[in-house]
Amino acid sequence: MFHDHLNEVKRREHALQIIGERIASGGREGIYDLTGLSGGFPLEMEDIGLLETYVGPAVFEERLQTAGRKHMGGEMVAAFNRTSSAILASILELAEPGSLVVHYLPELPSHPSIPSSTQLAAARYHETDDFTEDIPENTSLVVVTGSTMDHRVVDESELQQIIERAHSAGVPVLVDDASGARLRTVLFNQKRACDLGADLAVTSTDKLMHGPRGGLLAGRSDLVERVKSRAYRFGLEAQPPLIAAMVRALESFDPSEILNALERKGYLLEALRDLNVEETPTGIMIKPDSLEELYDSTCTGDEIAVALSMLLLSDHGIITIPAVGMPGASKTLRFDLASRDAERLVPELLREAIEDAVDKLSGI
Amino acid sequence: MFHDHLNEVKRREHALQIIGERIASGGREGIYDLTGLSGGFPLEMEDIGLLETYVGPAVFEERLQTAGRKHMGGEMVAAFNRTSSAILASILELAEPGSLVVHYLPELPSHPSIPSSTQLAAARYHETDDFTEDIPENTSLVVVTGSTMDHRVVDESELQQIIERAHSAGVPVLVDDASGARLRTVLFNQKRACDLGADLAVTSTDKLMHGPRGGLLAGRSDLVERVKSRAYRFGLEAQPPLIAAMVRALESFDPSEILNALERKGYLLEALRDLNVEETPTGIMIKPDSLEELYDSTCTGDEIAVALSMLLLSDHGIITIPAVGMPGASKTLRFDLASRDAERLVPELLREAIEDAVDKLSGI
Repeated sequence: MFHDHLNEVKRREHALQIIGERIASGGREGIYDLTGLSGGFPLEMEDIGLLETYVGPAVFEERLQTAGRKHMGGEMVAAFNRTSSAILASILELAEPGSLVVHYLPELPSHPSIPSSTQLAAARYHETDDFTEDIPENTSLVVVTGSTMDHRVVDESELQQIIERAHSAGVPVLVDDASGARLRTVLFNQKRACDLGADLAVTSTDKLMHGPRGGLLAGRSDLVERVKSRAYRFGLEAQPPLIAAMVRALESFDPSEILNALERKGYLLEALRDLNVEETPTGIMIKPDSLEELYDSTCTGDEIAVALSMLLLSDHGIITIPAVGMPGASKTLRFDLASRDAERLVPELLREAIEDAVDKLSGI
Repeated sequence: MFHDHLNEVKRREHALQIIGERIASGGREGIYDLTGLSGGFPLEMEDIGLLETYVGPAVFEERLQTAGRKHMGGEMVAAFNRTSSAILASILELAEPGSLVVHYLPELPSHPSIPSSTQLAAARYHETDDFTEDIPENTSLVVVTGSTMDHRVVDESELQQIIERAHSAGVPVLVDDASGARLRTVLFNQKRACDLGADLAVTSTDKLMHGPRGGLLAGRSDLVERVKSRAYRFGLEAQPPLIAAMVRALESFDPSEILNALERKGYLLEALRDLNVEETPTGIMIKPDSLEELYDSTCTGDEIAVALSMLLLSDHGIITIPAVGMPGASKTLRFDLASRDAERLVPELLREAIEDAVDKLSGI
């Protein structure tokens, strides 16, 4: 076990060294980070110069209002350290102690942040995937998930109806639209949650767009102000550098990139059928198990995956987790086709790179 | 009221324009931001390039461990979005529901984050400035404030004794050393909280050092791991860009800058005695009230302060809040002498600039 750990550390250091060498010789263009985990941080030097003065944050705050409302609708937006922090602040502010928070979602179970936050607010929690269920008496907040972590998407008419029923009962609605704010609107042509009447809606600026991990809350200005003020008490708000990166990402958001990613995914799923590739929400993956079957070798699937990942990096500059991951990280080869670097890599070349690495390992 | 607001917006826009012109003609060196509110964000372009890959955050995490432990002691450190978020995560993890959190501090009342977090943990709260008070039965956490917001500093022997008494009772100790981690050690020659036996200690990387607003938690690795894991559930952890900025600030921390700031403060308090300057923890301030007395004018103190602030900016490039603040911001002229730009401005020149602006306004 300790021996494995040491090998993993060495493998990772070797991968970092290759990345360093490729960047040194070919610049940032020499690598393609397809991990999907790099975290968008699209700042320019001029942003940093501005952030370094008292006035910078105020400038970015103004730009956030413009770009954020364009993306989300609503009267006002506010930025949080993460979507989970925005959810915590919203639930602490809106759920009354002893009352009920009811959560409707397309597929159970919920992301844990919603029940955990409800517990801190000393409220009771109920979740359901049945949108016809009544809103019980003594409910102080209705939460609706627009799209689950596995990208199961709510029906627009069900979303709209639950908002109307909540409002008839005098209960505010928070839509957890972490990925939904783009998935629902771009792929399914649905309206923005605020346009459907949601009092608050929150999205993650790193999901299906090239922003930092962070939560953007939009909605009624009276509620956004209250939630912001609650957030400051516990350090849940986004800091200026995060706001600046969110602004850059929102301003450069291009829905066609999502459509392109899904087109690339369709092509690769078909072209690499023989390798047992499987789909992820925004890309493809090859699991160690299927590699073990494919090679009929004495090596384990994990070992084959690491070898493939190292070959993809050294021969093609393609970064995947099995090469660069921390010890213990999953050895599944994931290729995120919505990551920024995927746009520079035509899918035919990615296919060839994967096939080339697989061939080189034949006879392992 | 609306008219005032409009004037304030115009005043601020005019100030921003002056800053823009000065930066365009003389570079960043053409301004001196003495607001103390600019928030250190000492990133270099190479940091951003690194952050843009999957491996960047891991590199900064390793550097954070080294620089953080050097600054704070302890077995391990972790970075949080703010000190308040670190305190919330620690109290949620360590305070048992129904038990007592006891808070010892040099001067009442506490920063609100500690009682508020205790409430979320469903624990009871007691605070005292009497360090001889017994630790009651059923206490699950002792918090000690190392230095208050007004820079009242705990006695080292009292701090050490309370840690020993808590440990005899089997209770862990969290030291809120937001500014204390530097004030206590650099000015009062006290030991680091972890070296005195604290199980956890937290500091703010923007207080008396040139880092971003953020919380650095240090201490026993088992507890730091538990608090980190709790933090991830609610989005309380620092994001990679914040960690990178914290690392830069910790690596470049120089205790002599604090001593220099206090020396500059002593000089200016003496040299500007006639202007009724008052001291702040790390600088000086001139209040609108004393300006009203000084000028014996029909203008209000607020109006005089704004005029002085605009003169300091246009004639000397010195940024203070009355010029650049949002509508409604305080009109007190504060000069933070621990801010990075204060190091480029010899105190004699700052004194002359203030006297010059005051003279130009004579007869207002």
